Amino acid sequence: MNQLPDLAAIQEAARRIKPHVHRTPVLTSKSINSMLGAEVYFKCENFQKAGAFKARGAMNAVYALDEEQAAKGVVTHSSGNHAGALALAAQKRGIPAHIVMPNTSPKVKIAAVKGYGANVHLCEPTQAAREGLANELLKSTGGVLVHPYDNYHVIAGQGTAALELIEDAPELDYMVAPVGGGGLISGTAISTTALSPQTKIVGAEADDADFGRRSLEKGGIVTQDHAPQTVADGLMTAPSQRTFAAMSKLLDRIIAVPDAETLAAMRVVLERMKIVIEPSSAVPLAALLSGHLNVKGKKVGLILSGGNLDLSKVSSWCPPL
Amino acid sequence: MNQLPDLAAIQEAARRIKPHVHRTPVLTSKSINSMLGAEVYFKCENFQKAGAFKARGAMNAVYALDEEQAAKGVVTHSSGNHAGALALAAQKRGIPAHIVMPNTSPKVKIAAVKGYGANVHLCEPTQAAREGLANELLKSTGGVLVHPYDNYHVIAGQGTAALELIEDAPELDYMVAPVGGGGLISGTAISTTALSPQTKIVGAEADDADFGRRSLEKGGIVTQDHAPQTVADGLMTAPSQRTFAAMSKLLDRIIAVPDAETLAAMRVVLERMKIVIEPSSAVPLAALLSGHLNVKGKKVGLILSGGNLDLSKVSSWCPPL
Repeated sequence: MNQLPDLAAIQEAARRIKPHVHRTPVLTSKSINSMLGAEVYFKCENFQKAGAFKARGAMNAVYALDEEQAAKGVVTHSSGNHAGALALAAQKRGIPAHIVMPNTSPKVKIAAVKGYGANVHLCEPTQAAREGLANELLKSTGGVLVHPYDNYHVIAGQGTAALELIEDAPELDYMVAPVGGGGLISGTAISTTALSPQTKIVGAEADDADFGRRSLEKGGIVTQDHAPQTVADGLMTAPSQRTFAAMSKLLDRIIAVPDAETLAAMRVVLERMKIVIEPSSAVPLAALLSGHLNVKGKKVGLILSGGNLDLSKVSSWCPPL
Repeated sequence: MNQLPDLAAIQEAARRIKPHVHRTPVLTSKSINSMLGAEVYFKCENFQKAGAFKARGAMNAVYALDEEQAAKGVVTHSSGNHAGALALAAQKRGIPAHIVMPNTSPKVKIAAVKGYGANVHLCEPTQAAREGLANELLKSTGGVLVHPYDNYHVIAGQGTAALELIEDAPELDYMVAPVGGGGLISGTAISTTALSPQTKIVGAEADDADFGRRSLEKGGIVTQDHAPQTVADGLMTAPSQRTFAAMSKLLDRIIAVPDAETLAAMRVVLERMKIVIEPSSAVPLAALLSGHLNVKGKKVGLILSGGNLDLSKVSSWCPPL
């Protein structure tokens, strides 16, 4: 049940999802390189379908289903990018999607998921309510749960971004990606370790949601012991047994970053690279720019995980200097 | 004095500036294409050096100077992207730049121009004060005026963006670009007419600064008869004799767009294409999205002119829906 994909599974995922996702560009920025004295290769998953790397895992999970399973549809609970990604994947394959979302979700996010043709089921904003309603839907529909990160095919799909990045920018000294529940960092670490064993793999998370870092320190999962307060709303969850197993085995370290540094890094990307990223995506660059990880003279791969920025908040996040 | 460049001059400019500017990408967006029922090819000058197409004209003007002229430096008056572009070009060539800016310019813009090593001279925010101080500087330094748009080499440089766009996206039905003083649209129209005579060339401007449209209607220059109120702060000026001559000869029409449509178009680019543009850049897309120019079934080239977006204003420009 807690199996992790290997390189072959990630390569299979890459073949499976190729017709359904973008091969996103790898960009560089002279000004960021000169700030860091390093070469940074940004894998731009902000340009991915539905605006985030989540499309990779969702497409892999949906297209890995056999016909009979697929016909019954997929179920998940998520208020974030996984909800939109799974809805899109189900729409592409022409199967039902049931998405449980907290009734506190922004209307625009609910509308986006409905826009992909999914059935949205609203619930109270608690973990228990979300899981309870998802379980009811699994029973009533006979559908398959596609968990946002604790899922073999989802992790394999997320690992395909690093495959492409290593192809475009080989011989990396560091590979840096954000850490939430650990789906992206696990897939990234498996790909990277297999293809580029000399590359150190570093996770980055928000300091008020540093469940990954504390889990590594403790040598066991630190569960979500409080409701994190962070602008990095995609990185609030704790690892599962499965993702913790990958992280504890393969990561060099996890760096926790305060929101002020995350927002400063996001601003650098918006102003210098002229591309739109969401705060969660800026956490790895914040780990570099603030000096928590010294990459001077190094070649760094960095996954910009998503571009679903809430424009109504940008001005408070980026006040006049 | 009022000479316009021809295709050969624009091609010469392209060779001259090639080592000093980016060949910017041409991007497409499935969702924008599906909104319009058209194929739109976006020439992304928001990714240009110093954040705007202005680097093309400034580099061409600076590198066209002979050694003796160059040593005395360049002078201009601008509070916008031309100021930064000329400062950068002068820094690259290692010559002095004197930039006259209104004392009401945002500190961050003044800092950016100084950051490129230019001498900034502040003046009262009137046209007379700007031109007066620039004239004094021309006399005291012996330098060369590089006007933001009423300049042969600047127009030739701006025309290189369309050269590249036509190379990447041939057989366009329409070429659409923003109209301010007319440097970009003149260069664009000269390139496009010469290389792709069947392409209709359309300008787009802000409706409270519709000096271009009114000039075409009147058959003579309508000067700036009021201080325009528009978010498209790069498009506030009226044409010169030189740019009016190109525009009246080569344009199919100029479309004037209200700010609300401009901001809606900017939002579409930020949210769908995930790239950062400034409001002035969104005016041509607004002309399409709002139906002022019907491009259904057509192939359209569109120049996204700049990416120097004021992040502190984004939230008021893009409120929650």
